Amino acid sequence: MLTAAPKRIAPPTRLLYGPGPSMVEPRAYQAMSQPIVGIFDPYFFDLVEEIRAGLRQAFGTANQMTFTVPASGSGATEAAVANFVLPESKFVVFAAGHFADRMTIMAQRQRANVVRFEKPWGQVFSSEEAEEFLMRERPNAVGFVQAETSTGAFQSGRAITAAARQTGALVIADCVASLGAMPVEMDAVGIDVAFSCSQKGLSCPAGLSPISISPRAWEWLERRPGDPFTWYLDLRLMARYFEPTHAYQHTPSPPLYYAMHQALAAIEEEGLRNRWNRHQKANERLVEGLSRLGFELLVRNPADRIWHLTTAVPPKGVDETQVRRNLVQKYNIEVAGGIGQLAGKILRIGTMGPLATEENVDFLLEALAASM
Amino acid sequence: MLTAAPKRIAPPTRLLYGPGPSMVEPRAYQAMSQPIVGIFDPYFFDLVEEIRAGLRQAFGTANQMTFTVPASGSGATEAAVANFVLPESKFVVFAAGHFADRMTIMAQRQRANVVRFEKPWGQVFSSEEAEEFLMRERPNAVGFVQAETSTGAFQSGRAITAAARQTGALVIADCVASLGAMPVEMDAVGIDVAFSCSQKGLSCPAGLSPISISPRAWEWLERRPGDPFTWYLDLRLMARYFEPTHAYQHTPSPPLYYAMHQALAAIEEEGLRNRWNRHQKANERLVEGLSRLGFELLVRNPADRIWHLTTAVPPKGVDETQVRRNLVQKYNIEVAGGIGQLAGKILRIGTMGPLATEENVDFLLEALAASM
Repeated sequence: MLTAAPKRIAPPTRLLYGPGPSMVEPRAYQAMSQPIVGIFDPYFFDLVEEIRAGLRQAFGTANQMTFTVPASGSGATEAAVANFVLPESKFVVFAAGHFADRMTIMAQRQRANVVRFEKPWGQVFSSEEAEEFLMRERPNAVGFVQAETSTGAFQSGRAITAAARQTGALVIADCVASLGAMPVEMDAVGIDVAFSCSQKGLSCPAGLSPISISPRAWEWLERRPGDPFTWYLDLRLMARYFEPTHAYQHTPSPPLYYAMHQALAAIEEEGLRNRWNRHQKANERLVEGLSRLGFELLVRNPADRIWHLTTAVPPKGVDETQVRRNLVQKYNIEVAGGIGQLAGKILRIGTMGPLATEENVDFLLEALAASM
Repeated sequence: MLTAAPKRIAPPTRLLYGPGPSMVEPRAYQAMSQPIVGIFDPYFFDLVEEIRAGLRQAFGTANQMTFTVPASGSGATEAAVANFVLPESKFVVFAAGHFADRMTIMAQRQRANVVRFEKPWGQVFSSEEAEEFLMRERPNAVGFVQAETSTGAFQSGRAITAAARQTGALVIADCVASLGAMPVEMDAVGIDVAFSCSQKGLSCPAGLSPISISPRAWEWLERRPGDPFTWYLDLRLMARYFEPTHAYQHTPSPPLYYAMHQALAAIEEEGLRNRWNRHQKANERLVEGLSRLGFELLVRNPADRIWHLTTAVPPKGVDETQVRRNLVQKYNIEVAGGIGQLAGKILRIGTMGPLATEENVDFLLEALAASM
């Protein structure tokens, strides 16, 4: 039972300096309090088209098949894998973190033959390594993580796509953490299927996950032998709602679309490149400050770092759990610890969206210094 | 690209007299504009526990395993089917509408041996029919739709569960349209797995779907041979987030939880039985009015009707498409037409949540009379 006098929603005001959910664009909150409309309302269809246009810009693509999956980022991962990785087919995963492992598990559940190219967590793959591996394995599809939230490593994908093209493999990229804050540039990089989430670089609440599919991948999907095991995440069925047929598959959630529309509008007003630059500068300032405090960066090469999610090993004698507890209790600041094999070993500090400013980085650094 | 001056969200104020999405509880809108918190925040865990308690009340169950699926109602359907219907196992579907067909397709994609007991759309199944069929087929699991949104027929499930118990089959009930507006009473009826959505009887926006699982079904699931094909909708993984371990699987969307919390608080304040009565009375008034206007009810027996979704065949010479167009253009009222084999033949009129009052039924009837 709820309490006799059910409480109103009055959450504490947290500063979400973690890997996501990140701070929500203020105007997105205002948007969510607007009345919903029906799912075949012309007003809603117009809004969805504007969102799709904004997402194409953020993905760096001209793909017509750019739309939203009614799920969190993990649901979008499963949509990509379940649709584009066939049972018995060979799927290579470039694995150096938790989310590559998740992609592996999902593909195994699709009964694919998954071959993993493993490196230590936090490292990225060179084009020589990728080429050698793919020429030998000759998979049907390849998966990699562009921004690995568990390690802070960024891999644009250029090192992988060239070799994948040579062998004819479709390239699936987990852009859950990169979209909106760093260059995804899926067309320029040569990614066939890119997916993301809403609650990281886009500054929206969770629950609605962008996906974009290249024409050659869509052609492949239209001729795919057999249906995927999943109906809910079947992209051929899902796409019919977004295309002019507007055929009913799932019921979309208008408040999440309202929020995404306004977050994309904010990105467009700032300019995507300006937004990238702002995140890059915030990262440089944060890295400098962390070094002063005695942290070591998990990702050694600056070019391989996610700008808006920094992974740092605390100086000897500093307990990361205690630091995080202090930050929440004294400053209402949430940062994250490591997961998987990095649990207890690192802090994961996000400077996303509204937090990617000089002032907000400095505030975090001061609070951190006082919490060690 | 978005327009040069991206528009703010300013939707038309529609009166959603359709099968869902239905009108959202006003205080749920206010809740969604509150700041999000992290997904491991103690504040959020408390809120989730209150939601789970409220959902148990609405489901009519003591099931500990009552929580939310991060998806629309179709996602919850797939979660139920993918977890509780094994490949090669026999699954009986009681089929008399679109959503039973959807459950069929989902089970076939799980590679189950689906046996359908078919009746004309809009009819329900008697206990004699159910017993005879189940004793002959002896399935591993049984699926039925408690409130069939495509036809307006209500089947509590009592006619099915008794026979299913005798044969040892798990019973899965689609309560997408019933929860919050009509008695689900899953424990009393003997349902093992019940799932729903947020945007119908609960008066929330879409995107978060309640599910409840009986202890015997959960025991079965814990011993289930092999994992389901889906990772995102794997209920064993999902449950770990809701149980005291609070293990990360997906990222929940705080605004949708805030909204559901407030919608459940509103239900508790009104009283669940009062809310049921309100919907029942609204239905009686609507049915009377529709008869006066020359409509015939698709579901003949009043006891078999969904209270808050009425399916009506227009009088001869009245074009349902034109009626719906008039209602939207002149009154901002959205009602729905039929789907599947009932397309073009019926109106589907929802009187859910805030619309289930004498005044709102009369307003709809006046607008309808003027639109024919």
